[in-house]
Amino acid sequence: MVKSPARHLPYRGTTDRPELDRLIEGLRQADLTLDQPVLERTEIHKSHYMSLERDTIRTTSGNTADRDIVVHPGAVVIVPIDSEGHVLLVTQYRVPAGGALLELPAGTLDMHGDQIEDPLLAAHRELEEETGYRADKMERIGGFWSAPGFSTEYLHVYVATDLRTADHDRLAPDEDEELHLLRIPFAQAIEAAEQGVIEDAKSIAAILMLARRLERANR
Amino acid sequence: MVKSPARHLPYRGTTDRPELDRLIEGLRQADLTLDQPVLERTEIHKSHYMSLERDTIRTTSGNTADRDIVVHPGAVVIVPIDSEGHVLLVTQYRVPAGGALLELPAGTLDMHGDQIEDPLLAAHRELEEETGYRADKMERIGGFWSAPGFSTEYLHVYVATDLRTADHDRLAPDEDEELHLLRIPFAQAIEAAEQGVIEDAKSIAAILMLARRLERANR
Repeated sequence: MVKSPARHLPYRGTTDRPELDRLIEGLRQADLTLDQPVLERTEIHKSHYMSLERDTIRTTSGNTADRDIVVHPGAVVIVPIDSEGHVLLVTQYRVPAGGALLELPAGTLDMHGDQIEDPLLAAHRELEEETGYRADKMERIGGFWSAPGFSTEYLHVYVATDLRTADHDRLAPDEDEELHLLRIPFAQAIEAAEQGVIEDAKSIAAILMLARRLERANR
Repeated sequence: MVKSPARHLPYRGTTDRPELDRLIEGLRQADLTLDQPVLERTEIHKSHYMSLERDTIRTTSGNTADRDIVVHPGAVVIVPIDSEGHVLLVTQYRVPAGGALLELPAGTLDMHGDQIEDPLLAAHRELEEETGYRADKMERIGGFWSAPGFSTEYLHVYVATDLRTADHDRLAPDEDEELHLLRIPFAQAIEAAEQGVIEDAKSIAAILMLARRLERANR
């Protein structure tokens, strides 16, 4: 039996809340009762960092079915907050959206052979490449699949603080990655995420996750 | 010149906040200055509802580059809130995640030839198929791209209220779509989204968007 195409598996540990632990226990049982093992796998297309494969699975009810899956190494998304409480955002043209989007700095994990880059290192690298800043503090606050129906892309979310400009030896953006840097009050970014100005799921999720965290800490 | 593969374009209207309108004006300018027109397009693979295409684009700096793009019709995600303030969630096995995930009800827009299903109709259909409930009120609260770096999938977010059970003529889930229905207090879903129990970007973003809306309304 072929292994699942997942590069990252769902969280099955505990939390500090009994009612959340009960939800996780339910997911653990669903892993077994709803299991859909991969019976066969065909690689349909290989791109530079992602591939499209067709997995034949056994469905929960015992049939077989084909699933086309975008196998992706995973990525990081970073919420960089400076000493004045401003957040750094990037504006990028996105061909799949047919226009420019306002997003948090983010990027795909590098692959070296079968080895996937450490997400923490990738967060530092992407922050510097996309914003020109380095962070003395980089804290993971969560993670999520961007499109678990058809893609293995899992994003790790980091908050970057204690920022300083990367000087002469700064890592430059990838070739052909043109972006504009924007610095706005974090409160304004929260509004932009709520009011439809930010239309990128990872950025909305990460900004609102951090917003709640900060509000809880200030309570 | 081939059109962008986008099925949905970024929001370029106004809001009721001048500082957000300035951000949108910046995006409108970036549409022009960072533009990456598609010069050529090849369909690499066609799946039942999505296709993989290779677009050759002109980069902002004037080079040409290839982008592999998952062309997807778009989708809806629904936050169903019942009269007791509980939310309906679904547990589904996700092959790309290698396990079960806790998510909001959601689904892909149907395609009839070149015609894409109306998102509001899809929201009603998916709510009934996945939960067995119908909603007398279905309000759009936003939308986002799930993975704008490589996919055209845009998700419309709806809040469904005034729920009642769909009786004998209920729309059934798609064949091979096995899921468990879960009903928990909305406050607990917010915690699950914050604490890493919900690991699906669309569900985290939609739950936290609604949470802020409700908190603002109660202030």
